Amino acid sequence: MLTAFRLVALAAAMILASPVRAEDEAPPAPPTSAEVLAHSPPEHWRAVDPERTVYLELDSGRIVIELAPEFAPAHAAQLLSLVGQGYFDGLAVLRSQDNYVAQWGDPLADDAEQAKPRGEAAGRLKAEFDQAMDAVGRFTPVPDGDVYAPEAGFVRGFPAARDPASGRVWLAHCYGMLGAGRDNEADSGSAAQLYVVTGHSPRHLDRNVTLFGRVLEGVELLSSLPRGKAALGFYTPEQTRPLIRRMVQASALPAAERVEYEVMHTESASFERWIESRRSRREAWFAHPAGRIEVCNVGVPTRRVD
Amino acid sequence: MLTAFRLVALAAAMILASPVRAEDEAPPAPPTSAEVLAHSPPEHWRAVDPERTVYLELDSGRIVIELAPEFAPAHAAQLLSLVGQGYFDGLAVLRSQDNYVAQWGDPLADDAEQAKPRGEAAGRLKAEFDQAMDAVGRFTPVPDGDVYAPEAGFVRGFPAARDPASGRVWLAHCYGMLGAGRDNEADSGSAAQLYVVTGHSPRHLDRNVTLFGRVLEGVELLSSLPRGKAALGFYTPEQTRPLIRRMVQASALPAAERVEYEVMHTESASFERWIESRRSRREAWFAHPAGRIEVCNVGVPTRRVD
Repeated sequence: MLTAFRLVALAAAMILASPVRAEDEAPPAPPTSAEVLAHSPPEHWRAVDPERTVYLELDSGRIVIELAPEFAPAHAAQLLSLVGQGYFDGLAVLRSQDNYVAQWGDPLADDAEQAKPRGEAAGRLKAEFDQAMDAVGRFTPVPDGDVYAPEAGFVRGFPAARDPASGRVWLAHCYGMLGAGRDNEADSGSAAQLYVVTGHSPRHLDRNVTLFGRVLEGVELLSSLPRGKAALGFYTPEQTRPLIRRMVQASALPAAERVEYEVMHTESASFERWIESRRSRREAWFAHPAGRIEVCNVGVPTRRVD
Repeated sequence: MLTAFRLVALAAAMILASPVRAEDEAPPAPPTSAEVLAHSPPEHWRAVDPERTVYLELDSGRIVIELAPEFAPAHAAQLLSLVGQGYFDGLAVLRSQDNYVAQWGDPLADDAEQAKPRGEAAGRLKAEFDQAMDAVGRFTPVPDGDVYAPEAGFVRGFPAARDPASGRVWLAHCYGMLGAGRDNEADSGSAAQLYVVTGHSPRHLDRNVTLFGRVLEGVELLSSLPRGKAALGFYTPEQTRPLIRRMVQASALPAAERVEYEVMHTESASFERWIESRRSRREAWFAHPAGRIEVCNVGVPTRRVD
């Protein structure tokens, strides 16, 4: 658990040349993750659109989130409207429940009289739990099945699941996914309370809450927050709620205040190889490569463009 | 994500009576988790043996770990020997890698010359990655399959997986599981470095590292630690390594310093109902109960005995 993992992280320079292979040789071993990254051509990466990027800024630093409007157009639009008004600035993280979620926004969002005014942003939104399969973009399946859905995989860089029988596809509650808190009614979310998954993927929430984004960088600022001591990880009055300095759309900031990101195209051959490298770890430390992988353990390669 | 979850936590008192059912009626809905707990008879719980319990004590509090010697007798025995010597007292947490593990112990454990002396505890141990199925106790499967293994389920309160074809069973890398760090060689663990899973279950580590326990209480003290800024989440020299005040076997302490725990028998009818309650959530908040569950999302009911 020590040396080998360190080696993996440093192994990017150690690329094996593709062997010339005769008909009767064994198939080549899958690449390591480092090899996949080192060999991925620029066209297998996409720039993240700053119009679809929001920054959640705490005293501890910046959490960068890419939105997925194809899956939840109304929630994404309402969030950008709220963010544009400075709605979240000065609000706080309300809840950090261990092995589950961190949640922030207006603590009185569900109270018609006391909720913080949302300006032009509408009130409650219709649930956007799933979408038509042909409406969101190409689905890249993972090959080893899924406990929760007929198929799991990736769409546009986001973990997802689908049911070909019903023709529906939805985002999956993997670590780092962004959702819109809601009350008991399905159509009661408003994007005035948001959460990010900070524990083992609670996939039973799939199609129960609207997911609409993914943390690209800084998720550890949420996952390492002190846990709230009240039920469900809500902070008690004795605890200090972590302050939100501001939540802002990246495109609203001058270029000098932004960071640019690239995400590997999950439709690319490099991503296919990435999945393979993660299914069958060839790094020296592994005694027994699994040969299988679950959607939330794949990870989507994401890098800063400096 | 707000009101309903709060209700769930408070719903223990709201138990529905079992309906009288005619032949042609629909089957009864599965119970809620709160109902399962409220109706579980005392014989469906077992006391946790203080001889198998270790406390890891940080400045922030106590992490309680139950060992699983049936799965890794040599590692459990060596850990108890080290703990009995006060070996870990004054050492530190070395690593907190986001969405992965927290690891503690002797940073020089793999260095034959500079490692902290281990007294009677032997050096490197043979790997204990899996065991014969008939050697560890009854296996209670989860009914919805598993991405990583032919079967997943529980043995003696620990999440596990097995392969009936090979007759082998092993503990599963779910959130909160305890493992023994090792170097590149499979037989290089010594229990002088330990880790706990603090993120989405890295099941690809199954059968690659010796697992031998589970955190019963206090895992949030590890999962909310600041992340290390070096590769793999190791703390840099500029960061303060969280101090281990002591690591001690519960049975070595006077009764007044211990806490007693009970764990639901994973072979009991109550645990079968627990799985069912978690597969098909009947609480009002859920719009679309999954009807399926993955082993690491089941959780094993654990309670303090005050």
